[in-house]
Amino acid sequence: MENRLEQQFAFIKEIDKEKFIQRQTHLSDGKRRENDAEHAWHMAIMTLLLSEYSNEELDVLRTVSMLLIHDIVEIDAGDTYAYDEEGKKTQREREEKAAQRIYGLLPKEQGRKMLELWEEFERWETKEAKFAHTMDNIQPAMLNAGNDGNDWVTHGVHLSQILGRNERTAEGSQVLWEYSRDHFIRPQVEKGHIVDDCSEKNPSASSAED
Amino acid sequence: MENRLEQQFAFIKEIDKEKFIQRQTHLSDGKRRENDAEHAWHMAIMTLLLSEYSNEELDVLRTVSMLLIHDIVEIDAGDTYAYDEEGKKTQREREEKAAQRIYGLLPKEQGRKMLELWEEFERWETKEAKFAHTMDNIQPAMLNAGNDGNDWVTHGVHLSQILGRNERTAEGSQVLWEYSRDHFIRPQVEKGHIVDDCSEKNPSASSAED
Repeated sequence: MENRLEQQFAFIKEIDKEKFIQRQTHLSDGKRRENDAEHAWHMAIMTLLLSEYSNEELDVLRTVSMLLIHDIVEIDAGDTYAYDEEGKKTQREREEKAAQRIYGLLPKEQGRKMLELWEEFERWETKEAKFAHTMDNIQPAMLNAGNDGNDWVTHGVHLSQILGRNERTAEGSQVLWEYSRDHFIRPQVEKGHIVDDCSEKNPSASSAED
Repeated sequence: MENRLEQQFAFIKEIDKEKFIQRQTHLSDGKRRENDAEHAWHMAIMTLLLSEYSNEELDVLRTVSMLLIHDIVEIDAGDTYAYDEEGKKTQREREEKAAQRIYGLLPKEQGRKMLELWEEFERWETKEAKFAHTMDNIQPAMLNAGNDGNDWVTHGVHLSQILGRNERTAEGSQVLWEYSRDHFIRPQVEKGHIVDDCSEKNPSASSAED
């Protein structure tokens, strides 16, 4: 058991580094950027509160666990910004390698379980993975809207990019996608903080569920 | 439903502020202090991995949920350092008031559930609350040991204080308390980074389970 505990704490100490992985999104004070650990914590609580809106009934613990661990690979692979097309080309390979190393610190069967949970998130097939991705798309949209679209303005983000990223958001929760679209995205298009490159002025015109 | 979602997102936006609440503990780089959201995230994952060592079989989702939300009150009440005896006198009152305001943002029945979960943690009676407190005591000890006791040195912390704080750590997990005592605390006593004010040189001499 001593050896098992050593392996578990080696992993637990290692993941402290996730707190240093900066995302592009700024926090509600508009000053500091969010890190991966804070992002995961926020989405885990969101899942506790919002799972009632899932299209299908969820295993909440599985979804929360998935969200808590889904960005651990970024300790080695770094954060790839949602609209960084170059970075996204090598993302899968970098993250796969990171997963092998980091989950490999754990006792074998526990590491495999965690790896499978991460792969489930990545495959985006189960209802838990779909809902986790819904959270992963809605949480930064909420923060960006809270900063009056400042991150979108800084990166010159276009509506087509946001709708592209959100193409599957409704698969986890139709209700929450619509809420995000109407409350976080659309007002920022209307203010000109998101470049409206879609033929219709209304983001719902080419949204995920249409 | 629109109104319900408004209330839920009011709460979800509000708790972003937990990311600004600094704890005394430094992260593994030794430079920056940890914040409450990072702390909660870390302990939630620890619970997923270490619940097997709980003295009693746990409802893991309940324990994880409790840990995720247990510091939200500090948005208003601030972090009270474990060894700040003055601050601890008013802590309960400040936190109770904060809980009423912040959980009060949620739809009534959901806010009540969250409040009850926080109160369960505070009462320290159920097996889930006991294990959550075990995590809450072990995680900073692990980080402090990782920084070679620097936070303990800075605050001139005495062994009797640490053992006092850990008086009930073994109630959640005997195994994890012993691991923390032997791997995180004792080596720092031996190095003189924790002031040894106990009659015996060995922290186990007056530890929780004896």
